[in-house]
Amino acid sequence: MKKAIALGILSLTLATAASAQVKPEDQIKFRQAGYSFMSWNMGKIKANLEGEYNPQQVQAAATAIAGIAGSGMGALYGPGTEKDIGNLKTRVKPEFFQEMPNVGKLATDFNNAAANLAKVAATGDKAAVQKAFADTGSTCKACHDKYRME
Amino acid sequence: MKKAIALGILSLTLATAASAQVKPEDQIKFRQAGYSFMSWNMGKIKANLEGEYNPQQVQAAATAIAGIAGSGMGALYGPGTEKDIGNLKTRVKPEFFQEMPNVGKLATDFNNAAANLAKVAATGDKAAVQKAFADTGSTCKACHDKYRME
Ligand code: HEC
Ligand code: HEC
Repeated sequence: MKKAIALGILSLTLATAASAQVKPEDQIKFRQAGYSFMSWNMGKIKANLEGEYNPQQVQAAATAIAGIAGSGMGALYGPGTEKDIGNLKTRVKPEFFQEMPNVGKLATDFNNAAANLAKVAATGDKAAVQKAFADTGSTCKACHDKYRME
Repeated sequence: MKKAIALGILSLTLATAASAQVKPEDQIKFRQAGYSFMSWNMGKIKANLEGEYNPQQVQAAATAIAGIAGSGMGALYGPGTEKDIGNLKTRVKPEFFQEMPNVGKLATDFNNAAANLAKVAATGDKAAVQKAFADTGSTCKACHDKYRME
């Protein structure tokens, strides 16, 4: 668990020469894109759980979510991305940048939950997916409750 | 190869009850989000190939791309998504909807290239990643050349 938290903070602060070159407005766009694309895939899993269950579609959706979750989105919260840039709005709260250890912990929880969702989805066990899906949704919500504006 | 093409077409036409419920404007937003997030990750891989090579970052980026590529984005090209909706602009060309078998083939090429990139990235072999990255980039370009407006 300690290791997992450390890794989460690492991935949040991981800003190599490579990713540092992304302009602040692009960082905001890319992070919104990542979240938005995850929400589509969460919606598909939800619809599958509530209606006809297509294990292949659920697995593909969960794999996309886990891939995005593991991609180091922390690098998209660089300097200059704390507030709106011209017409480009961001909903991140200032607290996000002031409470990095806690953000790192929530990001790690989210990462672990998403990885587990992908693992469970691969088994095709609907009841297990139901639980892993709820767990993942809680980690999205935990971050939004503290660090995303209405 | 025949099987791969069939699968590509399948995933493009895969519009279960689940995904059919997504509003046309959201379909456009989600597909743009998916492409946008992939382009961030392609950019990271490029920067790694040109500068300091961080195999972990490359693997994470490739995994995100492959996950998005495999998520069935074809379902985001439903009826009503052929043109702008109010202020929401789309750059998809009409030909996209008229040449589905070819789109399916290009989508399958892209899927296979992205899956291969993720596989190769996991080995940490920079030269092999260089090739797989170029192959993937070609499949993005192949689709844009025919089906995306300037
Ligand atoms: C570690 C924090 C954190 C986690 C985990 C997290 N989010 Fe968010 N999310 C945010 C923040 C911050 C924003 C605001 C980003 C901005 O506007 O710059 C946001 C924005 C969003 C948006 C709006 C995107 C847009 O188009 O503007 C959606 C949708 C969303 N998140 C869904 C999710 C889903 C689904 C998950 C989990 C699968 C998730 N988020 C996990 C912090 C998080
Ligand atoms: C099968 C076709 C196809 C493939 C494969 C494809 N694209 Fe695209 N791409 C499109 C289309 C069509 C659009 C326009 C979408 C719209 O505006 O509705 C687009 C739009 C985009 C955009 C603009 C997104 C935005 O914010 O409006 C980017 C960036 C992009 N693609 C990058 C990529 C990358 C990188 C890859 C490969 C890793 C890729 N695309 C693979 C068809 C494709």
